[in-house]
Amino acid sequence: MPPLPPDEARRRLTAARIARLATVRADGGPHLVPVVFAFDGEVVRTIADPKPKRGLDLLRHRNIAANPAVSLLVDEYEESWQAIWWVRADGEGRVVEEGPERDATIDQMRAKYPQYATHRLEERPIIRIELDRLIGWGPELRG
Amino acid sequence: MPPLPPDEARRRLTAARIARLATVRADGGPHLVPVVFAFDGEVVRTIADPKPKRGLDLLRHRNIAANPAVSLLVDEYEESWQAIWWVRADGEGRVVEEGPERDATIDQMRAKYPQYATHRLEERPIIRIELDRLIGWGPELRG
Repeated sequence: MPPLPPDEARRRLTAARIARLATVRADGGPHLVPVVFAFDGEVVRTIADPKPKRGLDLLRHRNIAANPAVSLLVDEYEESWQAIWWVRADGEGRVVEEGPERDATIDQMRAKYPQYATHRLEERPIIRIELDRLIGWGPELRG
Repeated sequence: MPPLPPDEARRRLTAARIARLATVRADGGPHLVPVVFAFDGEVVRTIADPKPKRGLDLLRHRNIAANPAVSLLVDEYEESWQAIWWVRADGEGRVVEEGPERDATIDQMRAKYPQYATHRLEERPIIRIELDRLIGWGPELRG
């Protein structure tokens, strides 16, 4: 599979509707969850779910606080394997509980996901991911 | 989002065409790649790509050799968020270079993915993942 040009990788990450977020647990194992997110070309931001599901969201936050290394993956599967593509963003995560960046993220997420119109987001922390590396693989022109 | 009954989570993992595999690197950061895979209800198996892409496949294998903890995620995104579901399998990975299990995996993968008919698989190692935990979230009846 050929590498995607950086601008194309960036474009596909921006447009993707869902990504998978990997963090590392205190016991050294990986933790993996699907997330909706916004990418402004520099930073990925995501908003935590309101109610911890068996502590999963808290776990994600605790993981990042102890070990900020995160990886984010978006992909598109096709039965024609030549058309499969994926983009991975590696970086450092930080939980932001409140303040202007948290508030701007809420606006960003509502702009990307109309679904959030009916959600109360004002009391949720965000995760901010500063990217160290963005790589993509796949055919340049989409199937 | 409600938890999925274990049988339903198992069924969806079996049927999924692509998963994301998280391992942990030697430097403690997460490593994330999309994989095609087979699940027999007990063990997940996947076959490495033939040629290392910038060493990524070797990295995946080295990660598992040093730290067998892996996490696998399948999900389905829908714009109607009530219909989103995901299943996560956590377990221990092991690279199997050759032998009957490797050969059986090739048959299993060719049965699930007709695309493999034209691929030479006989010299590739497999990753075998023994599951410790399988959890799913989402509405029980699909959209």
